[in-house]
Amino acid sequence: MIALIMAGGSGTRFWPLSRQSRPKQFLRIAGDKSMLQLTVERLQGAVELKDIYIVTAQSQVALVREHLPQLPQDNIIIEPFGMNTAPCIGLSLAYLHGRISPDESIIVLPSDHVIKDTELFLQSLKQAEAPAKEGYLVTFGIVPDYPATGYGYIEAGEAVSEGIFSVKRFKEKPDADTAATFLKQGGFYWNSGMFYWKYSSVWAAFEQHLPQVTALLEEILFAWKHHNAGVSITDIYSRMPRVPIDIGIMEPAEKRAVIPVDYGWSDVGSWKALADISPSDENDNCIPQKHFALDSRGNYVNSDKFVALIGVDNLVVIETDDAILVVDRERSEEVKKAVDTLTADKLDNLL
Amino acid sequence: MIALIMAGGSGTRFWPLSRQSRPKQFLRIAGDKSMLQLTVERLQGAVELKDIYIVTAQSQVALVREHLPQLPQDNIIIEPFGMNTAPCIGLSLAYLHGRISPDESIIVLPSDHVIKDTELFLQSLKQAEAPAKEGYLVTFGIVPDYPATGYGYIEAGEAVSEGIFSVKRFKEKPDADTAATFLKQGGFYWNSGMFYWKYSSVWAAFEQHLPQVTALLEEILFAWKHHNAGVSITDIYSRMPRVPIDIGIMEPAEKRAVIPVDYGWSDVGSWKALADISPSDENDNCIPQKHFALDSRGNYVNSDKFVALIGVDNLVVIETDDAILVVDRERSEEVKKAVDTLTADKLDNLL
Repeated sequence: MIALIMAGGSGTRFWPLSRQSRPKQFLRIAGDKSMLQLTVERLQGAVELKDIYIVTAQSQVALVREHLPQLPQDNIIIEPFGMNTAPCIGLSLAYLHGRISPDESIIVLPSDHVIKDTELFLQSLKQAEAPAKEGYLVTFGIVPDYPATGYGYIEAGEAVSEGIFSVKRFKEKPDADTAATFLKQGGFYWNSGMFYWKYSSVWAAFEQHLPQVTALLEEILFAWKHHNAGVSITDIYSRMPRVPIDIGIMEPAEKRAVIPVDYGWSDVGSWKALADISPSDENDNCIPQKHFALDSRGNYVNSDKFVALIGVDNLVVIETDDAILVVDRERSEEVKKAVDTLTADKLDNLL
Repeated sequence: MIALIMAGGSGTRFWPLSRQSRPKQFLRIAGDKSMLQLTVERLQGAVELKDIYIVTAQSQVALVREHLPQLPQDNIIIEPFGMNTAPCIGLSLAYLHGRISPDESIIVLPSDHVIKDTELFLQSLKQAEAPAKEGYLVTFGIVPDYPATGYGYIEAGEAVSEGIFSVKRFKEKPDADTAATFLKQGGFYWNSGMFYWKYSSVWAAFEQHLPQVTALLEEILFAWKHHNAGVSITDIYSRMPRVPIDIGIMEPAEKRAVIPVDYGWSDVGSWKALADISPSDENDNCIPQKHFALDSRGNYVNSDKFVALIGVDNLVVIETDDAILVVDRERSEEVKKAVDTLTADKLDNLL
């Protein structure tokens, strides 16, 4: 099995800790290690290091090397710049062309998600082997535990085999009522953005459903083969449509399967989401060890300093070298607005 | 006129900004200059620099020199350690013994109070001249604008002359009902801790009302005269009773006067008090110039960094090199509890 980890994201949701030069997957916010390191560690025993590939943006190659010094240098696939997941995965498939057998299975993973139960995660990969061999494009659907409106959903159809279902359809992020109906009705799962497929199956799907992407990938393959003679990969890549893999490949594909999983997954999309899954003390505070807290509950503080909280509830307080964020926990998604303002004001050193 | 500025306090109310080694009077929290510098500046035009004396603790002499490099070295009076105001002022009087005429008037000022209207302040000093010459121990009573329970009060008696009243009695900090009665009834003023008196009058009052202090001061004078031969000033000073000047001298004294003043005074006793008198923006926020604020009101933030506030109200956020305080504005007096805990835990580097 080959693992392809997508590590090119440049999220702003964890500002001021995440920056253009230090995106979420390189932060140590979900443990002692960075999210990228944890993603690689999670595969231990299932995928050999030599079979783990990281696709990342040019600007983040140095960071990937720093976080994964043990990774063979050739296993870093460089996107000229971040596009969307279909071009990103397509480029990676082009890179793997000739390096791996067309029969080889690939697990595609985001680098900035949290999975609590590694055992169950590895079991689900094993489960995906058989349908992938049969040519299914396999997704992993998270069993919802609340009517989330922040995720896309996968509606399961007929059982393909035990614990594996065909995909009826992909659903965009629903409104609250629809999400409640999904939860009540059952058979709807959160789209985790993880995929398992045979190289040849997904390549065939690209050819069938994204011929314009495939044509550009062929151009890139030709350029690589001829040592880029006179051709710029960046130029070719910039002509890619910015289409997500879900929409470009998974929606139109015929042979799709979903494996419902329940292993404590989170895409950790905001400070609140991180606070919700982080270990907290008896007052639901997640604060540095060195602290003084009085009548304060539900706070999440990230700082190397001594922290004193008095009479404050449900705050997220983030301190970095050059900025301090204080936000109501329930409004932490609005951090994006601060970043937008900094961008508009061209305060690049804070971005 | 001689000015005696008391700068030996070691408050903890402005933790984490104020520290044992950097008390409130040395902080630039009420403007571009430290409170001590502002106190000296306020006397400009009324008292010559050579006539301004600073009494401070041994441990703070270097800081006083740093903040007031223009001050003659001999004008720093050193307390071996902080006692209370009666020994502190007594020691200063002993130091001034022989240096100034017994007929000279002295204005005694704390170094960590805010006075907004300097003109009115200087006028009140002029007003105090005549009664002081007549032998009155003059105090300045702040016209209350709300029923404060955090200050002692001075009850005015008969008029001595225009705008000057005899003192009926000093009142300890009242409860809320009593404070409301004071405000309603009128003739009650906040005790500002500022005094104006003739040297000979206050020395006589010490002799009469605090003979044990006076005896120790005589010992100190003797030791100084004989170049400390075999005697430790520190030892003598340590035998002083820790009595405030209000209780030790002003309460028992017969010839006392109060000048009601209304010049925007505050003893700035807490972060809230500072926030209340600090210039704020249209949302009542007092935050660094470089900031992003969204749906946030009544916050006071002290930090050199870029500050982003989203959906938070009435917070005090203070960031220093080694600590962050986040406290509900109305509970900022409880910062003392954090300091107490740090003291108990012997976390001296944070004190």
